[in-house]
Amino acid sequence: MKTIKTLAFKFHPTKDFFILDQTLLPEKKVFITIKNTKQMVLAIKQLKVRGANLIGVTAGLSLAQYAFKNPKAKNLKALAKQLSLARPTAIHLSLIIKQIMKQKSPSAKLNQAIDFYKEDKKACLEMAKKASSLIKPRDRILTYCNTGSLATAGIGTALGVIKQAFHQDKKKIHVFVCETRPLNQGSRLTFWELQQEKIPSSLICDNMLAHLMSQKKINKVFVGADRISKNGDTANKIGTYNLALISRHFKIPFYVVAPSNTIDKQFKTGKTIPIEKRSEKEISPYWAKHKKNIINPGFDITPRYLITKIITENGFYKN
Amino acid sequence: MKTIKTLAFKFHPTKDFFILDQTLLPEKKVFITIKNTKQMVLAIKQLKVRGANLIGVTAGLSLAQYAFKNPKAKNLKALAKQLSLARPTAIHLSLIIKQIMKQKSPSAKLNQAIDFYKEDKKACLEMAKKASSLIKPRDRILTYCNTGSLATAGIGTALGVIKQAFHQDKKKIHVFVCETRPLNQGSRLTFWELQQEKIPSSLICDNMLAHLMSQKKINKVFVGADRISKNGDTANKIGTYNLALISRHFKIPFYVVAPSNTIDKQFKTGKTIPIEKRSEKEISPYWAKHKKNIINPGFDITPRYLITKIITENGFYKN
Repeated sequence: MKTIKTLAFKFHPTKDFFILDQTLLPEKKVFITIKNTKQMVLAIKQLKVRGANLIGVTAGLSLAQYAFKNPKAKNLKALAKQLSLARPTAIHLSLIIKQIMKQKSPSAKLNQAIDFYKEDKKACLEMAKKASSLIKPRDRILTYCNTGSLATAGIGTALGVIKQAFHQDKKKIHVFVCETRPLNQGSRLTFWELQQEKIPSSLICDNMLAHLMSQKKINKVFVGADRISKNGDTANKIGTYNLALISRHFKIPFYVVAPSNTIDKQFKTGKTIPIEKRSEKEISPYWAKHKKNIINPGFDITPRYLITKIITENGFYKN
Repeated sequence: MKTIKTLAFKFHPTKDFFILDQTLLPEKKVFITIKNTKQMVLAIKQLKVRGANLIGVTAGLSLAQYAFKNPKAKNLKALAKQLSLARPTAIHLSLIIKQIMKQKSPSAKLNQAIDFYKEDKKACLEMAKKASSLIKPRDRILTYCNTGSLATAGIGTALGVIKQAFHQDKKKIHVFVCETRPLNQGSRLTFWELQQEKIPSSLICDNMLAHLMSQKKINKVFVGADRISKNGDTANKIGTYNLALISRHFKIPFYVVAPSNTIDKQFKTGKTIPIEKRSEKEISPYWAKHKKNIINPGFDITPRYLITKIITENGFYKN
């Protein structure tokens, strides 16, 4: 088979697995080698690879590659569990690992992992086509965190829609990017992707939303999702709930774009979706060192009523 | 006369004027010497000294000291203008400089400048006494940016109220501090002041408000102001408008604490209050270097209807 190449990783079953170290962007574009699933777990925890879909796809490939290279390995179940627990909020990681482990032979596992890659890539394109009609020429679109090729196996979810509207549908739009505290994944990753794609864009701080929306600088919002409950409540990067509330106040449509496998019907509402607590150091190394109290949830839950539409590869999600 | 000493500066008419370089906090506590008004203008622009009231008071002292030391100086009017224009949004700077220039003799100018220091210190105490009854035991109070001894000549405005409630009124409270992007004046300055004062507190990112408020972790909000129009619209650090909107959604009282000289009746509403545009570098040195579009307003205008009460040293402001 051919090597799979995306903006975020390079994979071949029998060769080294490379992932782009996203913690070094935009300053440096460095690929690191993932030699085993333990290194993949660490890369996921350290956010060297991140994004709900991308984590799932790369973790799946890593596990399947190990199984394929070590057909007699007896520790596969333990390794699968470690991978599965590396991050709790996005559904894709545990879902993909579970599905791969259901396959009996190493080659079936590998095929399943590659299928997840293909499906995610395809779902991105489908979502982009389905949602791009929501974008009109001269729209001023705000997006949050990173939902592009650094978060998926394809063109992205929310950012994929934006790329489609600009490049394929030739709509002249302007994109506003929230820096997305504390790790600035909007500033470091989305703004970088937009520069690569030559899409007109402006960088802002998360706390500038009301100011800019009151001036009518923004007229639509597109975000991704890490897990969506049956009723449509959406777990996404911390700050999404702020953004949804402020958008609603200014009557600005708020769209969630995510593949259908993001919808977790085990959760009737979003209230019990697990929210990852992350290190204090991410907010302030100085105060973390001095052991002062810092609160750092990685995600929040936006209630369904604040969301104008949820778009999947199958169309609008009707809960 | 005695040297005036506050947390933020040391002043004596005939000696060196020292200000605490706030850009180095919390890592380093360094006082720098202000030898002339030009250095004061630079210190204000670079935010080495900041806070609506403190800028006004220290700029006034710097100008008056120059006049006092150089009674025959002919460039006073030009220097006053430079000081006055160093930052546009807070009213205090231009107000204080104007009043000092109205005084004829150097010693009258000096007395006027010292009076502004004394008045601000006293107003802080009065506001704290007037507003602390709004705080109840076990309140979980959120504050924004820095409005303490690093922003005023006294104990502070919003943060002064919190200090009063905790230390003088012995109310057991918990304070949440927004880091306040892009310069983290909440994280670096307010959180530092709270540690100095041993007031229980937690640091959060600006985008965590909806998440924490939905969990009822916060039940009151206190902020300061840089300029208040006649109708009560309030110019304050960028992000205040976000905060006010989200507070209102969760029915959390939102209080503005500011001395009465913050109210600028020349402005009927907040719409035309000048909003300072600051450097792109403050948000992202990397993207600023690459000349990418970054939007960095220093302030926003919170409409009056989102504010529960405005508290000055004279009581509640009734517009």
